Amino acid sequence: MSEESPISYSQLRDLEDDFEDIDLQMLRQQDALTKDLYAKREALVSQIDNFWPLVFTQAPSEIDEYIQPTDSTVLVNSLKSLSVERFELPEGDPRSISIKFEFNENEFFEDKTIEKKFWWRNAKDGWAGLVSEPVNIKWKSADKDLTTGMLDLANKIFAEEKEGKAAPADETENKKKLIEIMEKEGLGGVSFFCFFGYTGRNISEEEHKAATIVEAQNRKLRKEGKEVKDDEEDEEEDGFDEFEYEIFPMASDVAVAIVEDLWPSAIRYFTDAQELEAMSDIDFEDDDEDEDMEDDDELDGQPSSKKQKA
Amino acid sequence: MSEESPISYSQLRDLEDDFEDIDLQMLRQQDALTKDLYAKREALVSQIDNFWPLVFTQAPSEIDEYIQPTDSTVLVNSLKSLSVERFELPEGDPRSISIKFEFNENEFFEDKTIEKKFWWRNAKDGWAGLVSEPVNIKWKSADKDLTTGMLDLANKIFAEEKEGKAAPADETENKKKLIEIMEKEGLGGVSFFCFFGYTGRNISEEEHKAATIVEAQNRKLRKEGKEVKDDEEDEEEDGFDEFEYEIFPMASDVAVAIVEDLWPSAIRYFTDAQELEAMSDIDFEDDDEDEDMEDDDELDGQPSSKKQKA
Repeated sequence: MSEESPISYSQLRDLEDDFEDIDLQMLRQQDALTKDLYAKREALVSQIDNFWPLVFTQAPSEIDEYIQPTDSTVLVNSLKSLSVERFELPEGDPRSISIKFEFNENEFFEDKTIEKKFWWRNAKDGWAGLVSEPVNIKWKSADKDLTTGMLDLANKIFAEEKEGKAAPADETENKKKLIEIMEKEGLGGVSFFCFFGYTGRNISEEEHKAATIVEAQNRKLRKEGKEVKDDEEDEEEDGFDEFEYEIFPMASDVAVAIVEDLWPSAIRYFTDAQELEAMSDIDFEDDDEDEDMEDDDELDGQPSSKKQKA
Repeated sequence: MSEESPISYSQLRDLEDDFEDIDLQMLRQQDALTKDLYAKREALVSQIDNFWPLVFTQAPSEIDEYIQPTDSTVLVNSLKSLSVERFELPEGDPRSISIKFEFNENEFFEDKTIEKKFWWRNAKDGWAGLVSEPVNIKWKSADKDLTTGMLDLANKIFAEEKEGKAAPADETENKKKLIEIMEKEGLGGVSFFCFFGYTGRNISEEEHKAATIVEAQNRKLRKEGKEVKDDEEDEEEDGFDEFEYEIFPMASDVAVAIVEDLWPSAIRYFTDAQELEAMSDIDFEDDDEDEDMEDDDELDGQPSSKKQKA
């Protein structure tokens, strides 16, 4: 070993840049290679009642810990379909993801489709990650609002800033109201539907484009073994907490867990759920189905075999 | 929706077969594409003192929860290097993995290298997953044995079965001794070094080869829309618990977490650890280093930027 470390952060970052290029290339390719299979899967599972609700009953803990008992009832009774898309492909960033929930008629909200998009964005301080915009839900009445008004306020706060009616640091009436509810309710047991209210860092399209160019230049410098100016110090300058009004601070982690785990492994989770139900002798079919499945090879028994997660 | 589900498990399994083919293809390709980069990384990080120990301090919870305080001391003081290999490539299964730990001289054991291999295996009952063989550690003395004799017994039990001196269901002296220690110690706080004792399901090379052929035939049948005989019932027939003598039952999950998370994200974990140390003003350099790093761009300060995990 050397007397002192001859390695700089730039060298490590240069290497990470190269790994990132391969990751992105793999994501693009995976998306292209699996597109037809996911379409085929959708066609198959749309013929299985309760496929997606059963998948959610087996969701990994990173998702499951945010699903409250009432959310679970809503999902079991009315989740019709889930779909995931890397919506900026083929040209854009494969890390930008959309998650679309489709619902049957239910007592809680009017929406048949609720879609949440996350954009991969670069910030001028060097940060890169997923940002989003709040999505509203049309609750059938105030007492059916699982988010107790928080989702609505998150949307209003986002709108008033977007329309230039308030600055990010302004303490508006809506923000005061939101903080009041958040303090009353606590964030421990908030509804999974608060997920749709996530905003994340506020990075404009212009900032993203400028930062992407700077990042490309910095990469080039690192590749040439040159030092890159560190912008980190600029970051905290404005000194206010961008996450103060987030009603679901972990949303981007949950989104990644849905996209990288729940979505690709949905058939395995469904099969796990079926096995559990078979063990407890509960039929997974809807109550409103008169005919039960008769043939042994249909989806009412044990699956033919199981595999360890690869 | 249909009156009754027209979908069979065979159809879902057929689809999963196709997804699996793509996953394997992607794993092979990823391995080929990243090989040079990992070699470059190894060359770089071998020049950074305490790189791997610092990575382990930031290990994700699936790994960290098994690292006891004493294990942590051993890793911090003597882990020199970690490497991961998909050792059956290019011909074999990319899911077979080896994890090699290299150690500096230390007070606990003689070994400079401890390597744990996991083979992806098919069983005749349709199960597929990772199996392993116990690896021994030469403790410097009985009171330096972090596994309190369990690792040694796990190796002996494996050997006596392999050499035909005992059948899997036999209650040998070594098994009695092991159960005694396991009951005394409990499995909650066992050393991370018990990881090396994992065996998993006992699947012979012959069984794997035969099962692989059967699985390929079953795939073909499913692809043709034909039903596949379910062998599941045969599975529990012998009625003894193959995991009764496992001293680290979660080893294959930990191995997968190392291979899919700790290993590819090592630079990020190292950087996280550096930031934490920078915040608490502790230098990560070894005490035996006389010269400290002087240049600003060397590894003693804040990294130039951070990225969200993709």
